[in-house]
Amino acid sequence: MADVLMSELEKLCIDTIRFLSADGVQKANSGHPGMPIGMAPTGYLLWTKLMRHNPADPQWINRDRFILSAGHGSMLLYSLMHLCGYDISLDDIKDFRQLGSKTPGHPEYNPELGVEATTGPLGQGISNAVGMAIAQKYLGSYFNREGFDIIDNSIYVIAGDGDLQEGVSGEASSLAGHLGLNNLVVIYDDNRISIDGDTDLAFTEDVAGRYKAYGWRVIVIDGDGNDVAAIEKALKQAKREKTRPTIIKLRTHIGFGSPNKQGTADAHGAPLGVDEIKQMKRNFGWDPEKTFFIPDEAKEHMLQVREAGIKAQKSWQRKFNKYAKQYPELAEQLMSAVEGKVGFDIEEMLPKFGTEKTIATRKASAATLNAVMEKMPFIMGGSADLTPSNNTKFEGASDFQKDNPGGRYLRFGVREHAMGAILNGISISKPCRAYGGTFFVFSDYMRPSIRVAAMSGYPSVFLFTHDSIGLGEDGPTHQPVEHLPSLRAMPNLKVIRPADANETAYAWKHTLEYTDGPVALLLTRQGVPVIDQEKYASASNLEKGAYALKPCENPDVLIMSSGSEVSVALEAAEALESRGVKAQVVSMPCWELFEEQSQGYKDSVLPPGVKARVAVEAAIGQGWEKYLGEKGVFIGMKNFGKSAPYKNLYEDFGITAENVALAARKLVG
Amino acid sequence: MADVLMSELEKLCIDTIRFLSADGVQKANSGHPGMPIGMAPTGYLLWTKLMRHNPADPQWINRDRFILSAGHGSMLLYSLMHLCGYDISLDDIKDFRQLGSKTPGHPEYNPELGVEATTGPLGQGISNAVGMAIAQKYLGSYFNREGFDIIDNSIYVIAGDGDLQEGVSGEASSLAGHLGLNNLVVIYDDNRISIDGDTDLAFTEDVAGRYKAYGWRVIVIDGDGNDVAAIEKALKQAKREKTRPTIIKLRTHIGFGSPNKQGTADAHGAPLGVDEIKQMKRNFGWDPEKTFFIPDEAKEHMLQVREAGIKAQKSWQRKFNKYAKQYPELAEQLMSAVEGKVGFDIEEMLPKFGTEKTIATRKASAATLNAVMEKMPFIMGGSADLTPSNNTKFEGASDFQKDNPGGRYLRFGVREHAMGAILNGISISKPCRAYGGTFFVFSDYMRPSIRVAAMSGYPSVFLFTHDSIGLGEDGPTHQPVEHLPSLRAMPNLKVIRPADANETAYAWKHTLEYTDGPVALLLTRQGVPVIDQEKYASASNLEKGAYALKPCENPDVLIMSSGSEVSVALEAAEALESRGVKAQVVSMPCWELFEEQSQGYKDSVLPPGVKARVAVEAAIGQGWEKYLGEKGVFIGMKNFGKSAPYKNLYEDFGITAENVALAARKLVG
Repeated sequence: MADVLMSELEKLCIDTIRFLSADGVQKANSGHPGMPIGMAPTGYLLWTKLMRHNPADPQWINRDRFILSAGHGSMLLYSLMHLCGYDISLDDIKDFRQLGSKTPGHPEYNPELGVEATTGPLGQGISNAVGMAIAQKYLGSYFNREGFDIIDNSIYVIAGDGDLQEGVSGEASSLAGHLGLNNLVVIYDDNRISIDGDTDLAFTEDVAGRYKAYGWRVIVIDGDGNDVAAIEKALKQAKREKTRPTIIKLRTHIGFGSPNKQGTADAHGAPLGVDEIKQMKRNFGWDPEKTFFIPDEAKEHMLQVREAGIKAQKSWQRKFNKYAKQYPELAEQLMSAVEGKVGFDIEEMLPKFGTEKTIATRKASAATLNAVMEKMPFIMGGSADLTPSNNTKFEGASDFQKDNPGGRYLRFGVREHAMGAILNGISISKPCRAYGGTFFVFSDYMRPSIRVAAMSGYPSVFLFTHDSIGLGEDGPTHQPVEHLPSLRAMPNLKVIRPADANETAYAWKHTLEYTDGPVALLLTRQGVPVIDQEKYASASNLEKGAYALKPCENPDVLIMSSGSEVSVALEAAEALESRGVKAQVVSMPCWELFEEQSQGYKDSVLPPGVKARVAVEAAIGQGWEKYLGEKGVFIGMKNFGKSAPYKNLYEDFGITAENVALAARKLVG
Repeated sequence: MADVLMSELEKLCIDTIRFLSADGVQKANSGHPGMPIGMAPTGYLLWTKLMRHNPADPQWINRDRFILSAGHGSMLLYSLMHLCGYDISLDDIKDFRQLGSKTPGHPEYNPELGVEATTGPLGQGISNAVGMAIAQKYLGSYFNREGFDIIDNSIYVIAGDGDLQEGVSGEASSLAGHLGLNNLVVIYDDNRISIDGDTDLAFTEDVAGRYKAYGWRVIVIDGDGNDVAAIEKALKQAKREKTRPTIIKLRTHIGFGSPNKQGTADAHGAPLGVDEIKQMKRNFGWDPEKTFFIPDEAKEHMLQVREAGIKAQKSWQRKFNKYAKQYPELAEQLMSAVEGKVGFDIEEMLPKFGTEKTIATRKASAATLNAVMEKMPFIMGGSADLTPSNNTKFEGASDFQKDNPGGRYLRFGVREHAMGAILNGISISKPCRAYGGTFFVFSDYMRPSIRVAAMSGYPSVFLFTHDSIGLGEDGPTHQPVEHLPSLRAMPNLKVIRPADANETAYAWKHTLEYTDGPVALLLTRQGVPVIDQEKYASASNLEKGAYALKPCENPDVLIMSSGSEVSVALEAAEALESRGVKAQVVSMPCWELFEEQSQGYKDSVLPPGVKARVAVEAAIGQGWEKYLGEKGVFIGMKNFGKSAPYKNLYEDFGITAENVALAARKLVG
């Protein structure tokens, strides 16, 4: 029986979490009560006894992190936050899932409040946590000195069976095992119930065996989730573990104590029902008529977490102050990095590319990284096993590995999705931030993570090379065509496709200075001409999103383009000029940035009176209509690509200067 | 040494495969020689000794399937196909990776030719194979009778470390273990090299242990990949296995025999080089000057596969003829199903929905499935653990499980990506075809599989419910907004978003009759009014993609919409009418179908002269510009959603009849 395993006061606190969660879901008439109820003992233990955190300063840099990967159990998080004295009031709890509340259906990243990550899309949170563990390991290696463990926190995750069924968590867990991230602790809520019913319907694998195979420490706790002594012991073992991440496979009962719904799918994703909650309260010795009730003893006891947190942070601060005396430069570096200061002029460092030879923008990207990365020690980078193709490795980078936590180049393996989620986890671990590369076509594999970054404003950098049919022979499976419009459709994601090497340098400058959301950088495999900035406009205009690369007074036609096709547009414009047609060529590397400009600027780039417009881009044209107007013509892809040398493909698909010029001439008439 | 393990003739054949592959890549000056060279012995064994296939009839229904999941090793496949007498000539081999050739960079689905699946995007092939194994189990259960194993084939996969690192393969493999798919055999080419270098950089997990945890039979073969006796023994063990899928972990050397590149990343993704190949040929006792050389003995020996295949199929045909006598109805059913005959009038079976109450289109979908599925026994269906939400289960369906291979409802678990790939595998296993459900927002998780289906023309059906902010409280993590434009951007995918219950029925009719590519069905969570077909147009017009739902002579304004917002558009039109503004309401459930119509029809639906146009859709508006023209107004989403009851959200985001009418009035002036 649960009762003998915990003290009366503990039980009271745990039951308070249970009923606060049940009542919150009930009032909203929507939500997931079963998980918070079943996992209340673990949540209680973690937040009151195990985790080092300070409700008065949720952004304390050396706090332990808590990631509710099973984000549908958000009421567990909100209940704990309220009871421990975070800035979530009882009214906020009552406002669960209502418009504009602090307590949305699934946790939404809010570092000021203390919500460490957006979770809900399953598998994301646990994989973010791997990124967080990497970042903390790196920071520890960078800043810690003999006697000064300035960064020595742990990352705690509650994950459900859904999280562990998702492939992304498998990818990330395999990598976490490889990297020996002993600062990562996952508690697997093994409640054996999912929406369809018993997990036996589809999920009978040996999870413990799988995690052992990944190289994790596995602790199994049978029972009903109420054995707080066993859970506490396991969590302490995990904390002491030196070489491996830990997963605690904890058997629980979803909706524990719900007289008719415990252990059933009915407790998962819908309110228990007023009568069911009343009966449960009665069984637990609570007044069935009281809702959102917090017994004074529980309130008082749990609020001590806040006091303890303040004390813990003060103690850390004292240590840090001593550290600052002994290592003033490091201390200063940490503080200014956390504030997001760059400390030097990125633009001055950018490489300048001459026009003498073509250069692939992926290579220009590498040159730019080589120029700036030494001065930006908290940017981590990597690739999903395409380092020599993505050109993501910069000079002097060493691999982040188990035996080299001071390395900051990440070998993600062939795991694009985990890479996306890990980049996110690193990028919300201030002062760290991360970029990661793969082929653009495989952005699809990591799209759920890109979306979470966009929604939450994570400053992750997604570097995608081989950005069109220009990759050639690998063929349609590897040639992105719809990816450009489909990423442009995503709100709050900056999609930057530079035209040449110098625009690429400025794309990096912009990316490194922008921290309010993610950026997708699209780079070519093939060499592209370097545009003559004396003859045409400066590549620094990239930061306006679009600009008149070849400006023209009273143009007859506008030719718009991005990336490798800008050179095609220029060539077409020159050909038109020789025939007396005046064309303004517009390089449009980033629509999102362009849309932020003033109407006056926009009208200067795309004069409203000029209706003859051609856009050329080696991608599906969806969305270009906005700039083309009713008469404009799009030259690009209408279907998937083909396997052939790329020059043959550009010919075959008609993406040529000749066709652009022809379309322009037809429009001009 | 390899030599003692195989006969001279075997070695000659194997080396022929090696050099044909090396020469093909070298001539194309692009491709992946290392895998075909290292896996040539396994390929040889499979194709000449183990697999039951007929090069003269690549579509023999009871053939074993071969999936080259490591699709970059395509030259292995093409070499085997050529040598075994499939319709790939030596000139085709020489044309590797050239425009319009039969031998593109990665295998592209071509059942007539004998290419079973499009592979290259890692993890897809092995996961397709799980679907194929499910389909064959089901067909066997359906058709086999005592003494007549009409369907008793196996699915063979060659997978690389990249395949096994991808999350999708983990998801699919976990499910395959759960389902006990003993007709599935994966050979894992454990060459320990990936693009970044040694797999030790990122992939040190215990793969064998992981697959054991999934419930697979694991056979480990050490050495160098040349121990044909051991490989043959393992493959035979796998064939005899009764309850589990088998993975053979086969240690190989990438680029085996390449004097300077064997076992290095250099052998992976680039031609070995002319000199390197010459030296290798010399070492193997071959004439270094000859390219694309096929020794007569090897040619003759391998062509016997064709003769053996013809014989095997004839023998099967004799058995089938006997079966046809004993079970004429079953035999007839199999034959007509393979030809794709539906055999009844789907339209007649469709449920008809009255206007008396609102109904969620997901529920109308379930009603439609209930009406037709009994008559369509080769359609399998399922959900990624959202059965009660997706309403994907039809009456009378039993679960496909290890002990019930005759069931055709699939419990995918929380594994959207694997579901996508498995649906693809089933849908290219004629006469089977499959649909699978999840929330629309999680279409992102399976997007790589949707893309392969679109590119390859697989008739998979992706059923996505909870298709907008209309899902309400679950909030922005669960509310699709950019998914509609981002799927519309994908070529060859029909995206159908029906306006109400009756359009939903016709959406299913169209989907079931269309087999040239995938369909995405977008359905509401929330109830929507059933549109009065006497007052307005018939829902059967859905098949035209768009139609004048509320037609109007000389309209002042066009109001276009899809899905749940069509009712909003209708309401706006009625309000406008009362103010003397004539509005034509256009329901646009499927842009792709609409674009297939004649210009005359299109002009009748969207009269070119009417420039006052409003589109309303609870999604990002990208792409609507095409139909809105320069003056039109889009009413919909501009950013991510929020967590709140859905009616509040529609108000909050201004997606209301009032706003639509207001926009229309402003346009009309």
